[in-house]
Amino acid sequence: MGDAGFTLGQLAATLKGTVDGDAARVVTGVASLEAAGPEHIAFVADGRYRESALASRAGAFLAADDVEGLPAPVIRCREPRLMLIELLHLFHPLASLVPGVDASARVAADARVHPTAMVGALTVVEAGAVIGAHARLHPLVYVGPGAEIGEDSVLHPHVVVRDGVRVGHRVIVHAGAVLGADGFGYAWDGSAHRKIPQVGTVLVEDDVEIGANATIDRGTLGPTIVRRGVKIDNLVMVAHNVEIGEDTVIAAQTGISGSCRVGKSVVLGGQVGIGDHVSIGDGAMLSSQTGVISDVATGVKLGGTYGRPLSEFFRIWVAQAQLPEMLRRLRALERRLEELTKGE
Amino acid sequence: MGDAGFTLGQLAATLKGTVDGDAARVVTGVASLEAAGPEHIAFVADGRYRESALASRAGAFLAADDVEGLPAPVIRCREPRLMLIELLHLFHPLASLVPGVDASARVAADARVHPTAMVGALTVVEAGAVIGAHARLHPLVYVGPGAEIGEDSVLHPHVVVRDGVRVGHRVIVHAGAVLGADGFGYAWDGSAHRKIPQVGTVLVEDDVEIGANATIDRGTLGPTIVRRGVKIDNLVMVAHNVEIGEDTVIAAQTGISGSCRVGKSVVLGGQVGIGDHVSIGDGAMLSSQTGVISDVATGVKLGGTYGRPLSEFFRIWVAQAQLPEMLRRLRALERRLEELTKGE
Amino acid sequence: MGDAGFTLGQLAATLKGTVDGDAARVVTGVASLEAAGPEHIAFVADGRYRESALASRAGAFLAADDVEGLPAPVIRCREPRLMLIELLHLFHPLASLVPGVDASARVAADARVHPTAMVGALTVVEAGAVIGAHARLHPLVYVGPGAEIGEDSVLHPHVVVRDGVRVGHRVIVHAGAVLGADGFGYAWDGSAHRKIPQVGTVLVEDDVEIGANATIDRGTLGPTIVRRGVKIDNLVMVAHNVEIGEDTVIAAQTGISGSCRVGKSVVLGGQVGIGDHVSIGDGAMLSSQTGVISDVATGVKLGGTYGRPLSEFFRIWVAQAQLPEMLRRLRALERRLEELTKGE
Repeated sequence: MGDAGFTLGQLAATLKGTVDGDAARVVTGVASLEAAGPEHIAFVADGRYRESALASRAGAFLAADDVEGLPAPVIRCREPRLMLIELLHLFHPLASLVPGVDASARVAADARVHPTAMVGALTVVEAGAVIGAHARLHPLVYVGPGAEIGEDSVLHPHVVVRDGVRVGHRVIVHAGAVLGADGFGYAWDGSAHRKIPQVGTVLVEDDVEIGANATIDRGTLGPTIVRRGVKIDNLVMVAHNVEIGEDTVIAAQTGISGSCRVGKSVVLGGQVGIGDHVSIGDGAMLSSQTGVISDVATGVKLGGTYGRPLSEFFRIWVAQAQLPEMLRRLRALERRLEELTKGE
Repeated sequence: MGDAGFTLGQLAATLKGTVDGDAARVVTGVASLEAAGPEHIAFVADGRYRESALASRAGAFLAADDVEGLPAPVIRCREPRLMLIELLHLFHPLASLVPGVDASARVAADARVHPTAMVGALTVVEAGAVIGAHARLHPLVYVGPGAEIGEDSVLHPHVVVRDGVRVGHRVIVHAGAVLGADGFGYAWDGSAHRKIPQVGTVLVEDDVEIGANATIDRGTLGPTIVRRGVKIDNLVMVAHNVEIGEDTVIAAQTGISGSCRVGKSVVLGGQVGIGDHVSIGDGAMLSSQTGVISDVATGVKLGGTYGRPLSEFFRIWVAQAQLPEMLRRLRALERRLEELTKGE
Repeated sequence: MGDAGFTLGQLAATLKGTVDGDAARVVTGVASLEAAGPEHIAFVADGRYRESALASRAGAFLAADDVEGLPAPVIRCREPRLMLIELLHLFHPLASLVPGVDASARVAADARVHPTAMVGALTVVEAGAVIGAHARLHPLVYVGPGAEIGEDSVLHPHVVVRDGVRVGHRVIVHAGAVLGADGFGYAWDGSAHRKIPQVGTVLVEDDVEIGANATIDRGTLGPTIVRRGVKIDNLVMVAHNVEIGEDTVIAAQTGISGSCRVGKSVVLGGQVGIGDHVSIGDGAMLSSQTGVISDVATGVKLGGTYGRPLSEFFRIWVAQAQLPEMLRRLRALERRLEELTKGE
């Protein structure tokens, strides 16, 4: 961003939209409706935010078509939510990558780091690892022997990518996430749990994002697989031998047990638990804190223990409130019937 | 502590209490009732621990007024629980801070580290970061560009404080916690989830404590805010744009979704889940594993799915045990009524 | 492994088994039934996998006695699951340890590192710490002042072992796990939560495995104890003063609150929550997402909120589906009885 900011006309041109009001007005940043001042442009996602927009001091708005009567110039465009992304990139361009290996990093002699990649301070790249073009390894990252990091991927500080794990292109791994720790597998030998060696790996395809302190375990024999476009939030646990389908979204603190197959475009809410060897069909949605231990069909929406259809789950939840009262009514009925038939 | 320990008289003077018994007796450490020997002083929180205290070998006790008849001298004081803190500080003074930057740390030329602060081995402080007086950055910590760490704050090993995050005074961040990872936000463009840049930050006020491997994401546009005196346990997830009010306490593995407002002096049990955009009123209590998806009033105590009032929650739970039997009784009633009316 | 692999005869001799088919056949690796080719040996755990085995292209099988009619030679042995472990060790021997301290590691002058131990790049070993024979400290590990790591133990990258923590022999700690962070304890002084110093420690006995990003807090006064042979999965939280009995297994994302006593050979499923001061009897099993707040007897199997016996829990769950319908039936009964008695 030039410190001078952009005129609404310039912004509208970039966002392929039009200006409803003074196109010469200059804004120097994006802010929330609540925090915005006259120098900011604020985003109005839809009509639900109209009241907040009316009260906002923002100097301009990026708004959906159905939000009218706003108190400052408005940029109108198709897909305003996607255009918000463009707007944010305009005002907050990604810090430019400084290629090269920091003097304090420890890169094995036979690791292959692309000359356009960045390896930050005190980062370790072990023997045989491969770091792709324009990849960014922030400080204090660990990349194990033979691991591969694809082009344009970003590993934030304290990420651990263990031996042999393969990470695709344009993957973002947030701080503290661990890819490729041993899966949790033992066999009881009569006197102790004996560890089953976990000799598989993890395969993360392109355009995946993995949250802070999430863990994705390596497979026992083959790979644990995270397909293209999957988005995983913080503190999620993906166990060994799992496969997660393309474009699936997994909210924070959810756990997926060993050998599960999660379909494409599935949505898992937060703190969901999936038992081992379960298949989740494409497009299924599990609401937060749902627990399932058997297969889930394509496209269904489930909630609660063992995953009931959401509408059933809600009806039961509502009915439960009357459960103590139902007990009393049942007893009353029994007593009355008893009296009735006593006289027979 | 002098290796010679303290007399009970010395301790009572510091704790503003009195000695019930031999004030000249010397103790050299604090121990639990079970582990204490004659050289230890042990703490008796209240009458529930009286039996354990009677069986203890402790050489002295720090006890509440209502615990009598103990088998060794007792220090009596107001607020014994607070005085336990003083006692522990006496016997376990904080290791003295050795100011200065370790030779192996990587501190950017334009970072400002207060001369009384400590920067441990292999710690990274990026450009423009500010480290306050008497702050302790343990080894292998990462402080990102422009981040600020207040006076007397402690960052344990492997803490990550990302770019621009501000941490107040006397804040303790435990090992592996991540402050300022990107919030989890995407817009579907018809063929892929496109990442919404998370250009906000995290603001942690004074006297906050954050547990090991907890994650507090940066806001989308503005800050995620943790107010003064908040205590957050291990593996807690605080999503983008959340604000947590003063003195709120959050137990381990709880997750707070995006844009929530949590009031002051709220208590969240362990593994609680709060849906996005939810407001939790001041002083509310959510018991462990509670899940809420709508606003919670001030001061209420909730439990279970969608957070029912605790007393209702318990009544339902008790009644549930009779649910299978209720079904049978209902069928029996229906049959008897059928028979009764058959004859009509 | 020799690149030439092993003949089935050689493998059978090592596994103390026999070959059912061509003992001269050579295999060069172990693979899953689905991924195996003619050069692989695949494992058939039991009859449930018979169909997959029939469809497999594997060149050989390691199979239980009750799986017959397989399409390639079979190694038969007692305890095939345990023999799978041997097989994996044959084909995937542990990378040999290179003893010595990496030049970039920071080891305090008075720390004692056994000459046969490995200390990886950029790892920190603080004053007075002791590292046992053949221990492997991977890169970027932190071992605090006075901590002890036993013989043959492995600390993966980014593990934090804080001051005074003792880790036994043959212990494996996965990446990002934190041993010895402060327990979560405060006393309210009328205006603020005051921190109770956590001056205890953590004691991890022999043959324990601890998952990635798990956290085990130090005790308030004494140790938090993890007994011999305990297996802890990723992202598990063990609070201060807990004791976990021998051979207990704890699945991912489970939380154990302060001062709990967990017995021997207990099995805790994933995302289980245990309230503070609870005792869990030896051999008890808590299914995933169970929450308990009172003591659990020896050997019982519990599920759900407050841990009901599993069979009761299932019956209630099934009956719940009829709850909305039960309400209607109850109303209908009341109406009919009303009509019946109206005429009296």
